[in-house]
Amino acid sequence: MNHISDQCIFCREDGGIPVYLDEMCRVVLTAEPFPGFCRLIWNRHVVEFSDLSATERQHCADMLVATERALRSLLSPVKMNIASLGNITPHLHWHVIPRFTADSHYPQPIWAESLRESRTPTLPPQFIDRLKKAIMTKLDEVKNAGN
Amino acid sequence: MNHISDQCIFCREDGGIPVYLDEMCRVVLTAEPFPGFCRLIWNRHVVEFSDLSATERQHCADMLVATERALRSLLSPVKMNIASLGNITPHLHWHVIPRFTADSHYPQPIWAESLRESRTPTLPPQFIDRLKKAIMTKLDEVKNAGN
Repeated sequence: MNHISDQCIFCREDGGIPVYLDEMCRVVLTAEPFPGFCRLIWNRHVVEFSDLSATERQHCADMLVATERALRSLLSPVKMNIASLGNITPHLHWHVIPRFTADSHYPQPIWAESLRESRTPTLPPQFIDRLKKAIMTKLDEVKNAGN
Repeated sequence: MNHISDQCIFCREDGGIPVYLDEMCRVVLTAEPFPGFCRLIWNRHVVEFSDLSATERQHCADMLVATERALRSLLSPVKMNIASLGNITPHLHWHVIPRFTADSHYPQPIWAESLRESRTPTLPPQFIDRLKKAIMTKLDEVKNAGN
């Protein structure tokens, strides 16, 4: 991990519960009140998706797809939401969020006003390990089967 | 364009002012009160980014980067925000949003509560043509220079 800036929380800290790590990026499970809400965080300090090299960009897209497919296979969300915002923490990271009709904001973006108390179930501790395995499986499909 | 569903607004309508169109996708300028706010809309009716084929995914990532780089070169935003949500319109589309300290929500996501009246300038009609040209130039860089 490249510790570019002491000021940057994603240069200093994992940013959540570690689920996946390679030379370029990592996937962490967040503590946000949305089940399965992950962040794909770039390891080196880059601000925008369009700052990545072609090789990095390809891997970033593959990782987004592997994470999204893993979450879909485990949780069957009604929709996936993915976003790279970073106005407050300008270090490239993607929110990868499974959405459910019973979550606090559906069908609004999670950054809008809450519509209700969430009625989504709490995931068991074993979910972390299941997610690790599912991301590895889906990444292998993306990288090796090319789909 | 594949008109899969009469119910789907992005199967039926451009979704904004046309800026770019190819066989797979299009870029439109939205009427949202954020200068340069574009949408990259997939032409065929696909729900999730992870539903695209490998070839489609590569083109989608290239187009996101070309659009983002074009907007950065023309408007010098303080940050770019990109997001595929689609809870209400589940037809793959990406919000590509240049953010400015003077916009109504900065540094919050544009879906959060407004913080102030926007003090961003209105773009001139010529901006559409400049954006078209910039997207073509940046796409050529991404596809042919491989960066």
